[in-house]
Amino acid sequence: MTSTTALAERLGRARKELAERGVDALLLGPSADLYYLTGYQAPLLERLTLLVLPAGGDARLVVPALEAPLARGQLGALELEVTAWQETEDPVGLVRSALEAAGAAGGRLGVGDRLWSTFLLRLQAALPGADFVAASAVTRQLRIRKDPEEVVALARVAAAIDRVVDGLDQLGWAGRTELEVARDLDAAIRAGHDEVCFVIVGSGPNGASPHHVASDRVIRPGDPVVVDIGGRLDGYCSDTTRTLVVGQPPAGFQELYAVLHAAQLAGCDAAGPGVAAARVDAACREVIAAAGHGEHFIHRTGHGIGLEEHEDPYLVAGNDEPLEPGMAFSVEPGIYLPGRFGARIEDIMVCTGEGGRRLNTTARELRVVDA
Amino acid sequence: MTSTTALAERLGRARKELAERGVDALLLGPSADLYYLTGYQAPLLERLTLLVLPAGGDARLVVPALEAPLARGQLGALELEVTAWQETEDPVGLVRSALEAAGAAGGRLGVGDRLWSTFLLRLQAALPGADFVAASAVTRQLRIRKDPEEVVALARVAAAIDRVVDGLDQLGWAGRTELEVARDLDAAIRAGHDEVCFVIVGSGPNGASPHHVASDRVIRPGDPVVVDIGGRLDGYCSDTTRTLVVGQPPAGFQELYAVLHAAQLAGCDAAGPGVAAARVDAACREVIAAAGHGEHFIHRTGHGIGLEEHEDPYLVAGNDEPLEPGMAFSVEPGIYLPGRFGARIEDIMVCTGEGGRRLNTTARELRVVDA
Repeated sequence: MTSTTALAERLGRARKELAERGVDALLLGPSADLYYLTGYQAPLLERLTLLVLPAGGDARLVVPALEAPLARGQLGALELEVTAWQETEDPVGLVRSALEAAGAAGGRLGVGDRLWSTFLLRLQAALPGADFVAASAVTRQLRIRKDPEEVVALARVAAAIDRVVDGLDQLGWAGRTELEVARDLDAAIRAGHDEVCFVIVGSGPNGASPHHVASDRVIRPGDPVVVDIGGRLDGYCSDTTRTLVVGQPPAGFQELYAVLHAAQLAGCDAAGPGVAAARVDAACREVIAAAGHGEHFIHRTGHGIGLEEHEDPYLVAGNDEPLEPGMAFSVEPGIYLPGRFGARIEDIMVCTGEGGRRLNTTARELRVVDA
Repeated sequence: MTSTTALAERLGRARKELAERGVDALLLGPSADLYYLTGYQAPLLERLTLLVLPAGGDARLVVPALEAPLARGQLGALELEVTAWQETEDPVGLVRSALEAAGAAGGRLGVGDRLWSTFLLRLQAALPGADFVAASAVTRQLRIRKDPEEVVALARVAAAIDRVVDGLDQLGWAGRTELEVARDLDAAIRAGHDEVCFVIVGSGPNGASPHHVASDRVIRPGDPVVVDIGGRLDGYCSDTTRTLVVGQPPAGFQELYAVLHAAQLAGCDAAGPGVAAARVDAACREVIAAAGHGEHFIHRTGHGIGLEEHEDPYLVAGNDEPLEPGMAFSVEPGIYLPGRFGARIEDIMVCTGEGGRRLNTTARELRVVDA
């Protein structure tokens, strides 16, 4: 849990960012942004919860009366006015009043990226003079560089998922379905996390679909299996991928894996302060392309991670933003041969002053489990 | 799983609704609406997935290339063009092209209620001539009356949660924390559902906060405990609440519970075809108010349920919409005494041609568990 002092400091930084970017207020619903700034883990509901944070003037959290005790409990000592609305009241009117009081009702309003459109449409109708922009223009500046406490939290959740990876060869593979294995992984993740975010078990040809989840396909000797797992602990996310093979690998697989392994190492080596995000992507891609598999690496190299599974910065062609100390992201090249098999290796890294630090520390060599 | 024929029929009804309501196209992201119309359970991602469904002209599903195999697999034989966009392409441009091809780019566009604002803002910027409205104006008409297959699915998931309720007195209560009990309930729900949606265990004074989740408070003899649980099975949601007391009830609790029980029965009895949603709310509220607890019933009486935990119709003062056969909703009055305790009873009902059918069938009398 973030201290009240740290939250107050974050709110102050947010106001400063708002002023600097010419945004008059933030309007944030239940989201990582809201949690980051206030410590309130608001449930996603059809009833509007919205933080109104003006660059100048009083901040106000508009919440359904039903959620007010929860909100007040989680806000603790943080100085933030809570306005509870009753079941038959119009919360959008309360938001408008708060904006009017701050002189921001006709200004530029940064609306939370994940706020449901139903709320944005109502806000737009109620505030015809306002100009709505994405809140992330402001909030990404706050959240993209993790502070030392956040890095500790990311390292802790990475260690929790690494313990699951350490147990991979103890699971039964051959003769079981992907779903059966996924259920075991779910339980193993749960044991060390507050929440399971996803479990991908892609065996044989299913491994060639990067976002295949888990099916009733029975895993067979000779199958490569892509295992991509993640959870959440104290708000922060884990995400790691390892590829294993059940017994004897199929023809061509070891060679393909060797290319992938080299590519992932190249990506991790490339990451460091001042290096463009796209450069890390290119570092992986060059190795894979040189081996003739360029067309089989069908996704970006990585995504930022923190309170959200996927957040800024994205490691993708075209993103020339330089990495900076505190930025945390995945490095996860993959090679996918449709109809045959796929492989991916993923670690979470944090950019430091000197280079990149891998938070996942399990071996990246091809794992062979009993057939 | 809904058959391809049924999905095609739903898409046809959606187009008819669009035409009748003067909406030129639906734009639906990952959501219950999308699943209802196409069978595709799209993951919530920062990469845009959007169904473009014009009133006239070709429908098109714009998906990230990475998700295309998953989407195509789940769409099966449904006739729907899939446009996969690559990592460095602009998906909003593809949406605009699809709308232009259907002559709808400057028209009235129904945008999914839960589509993230970041996408709506980008769509608004790319389609300056369009008028954006909430898609639910159209989709609620399709989804609010459940067809017989959907009612079967709701009854099945209600039976699954009732089995968890049947096991409540086998759980240990006194001396354990709410969180420990919640973990047991989580496992019990998981055993009969595909997914756990929520577990509320509110003991003693925590029961007076309707949306309290579960804390490290130790449950003590004499505590009333509100247990509100739900999960998802084959896409459809369960949601039921029972209140129990650990050993001897505290002074005044049995009387309060008797009032609540009578109120919930009155609400269930009131529900039927042609009855206004608000009338069911009033039926509960009148009983509670007559006993002097009007101010302690601080939320609406119920919400619709189906593919979403909360959806139309809402049983709340002011909603004069008449209930119709096929509508499914909760009846869940509660009485909350701040600082002391709370109680709530909740059943899911379906409106039939004759009246209301309770899908949850466990006893509603006060349960006493061992102290």
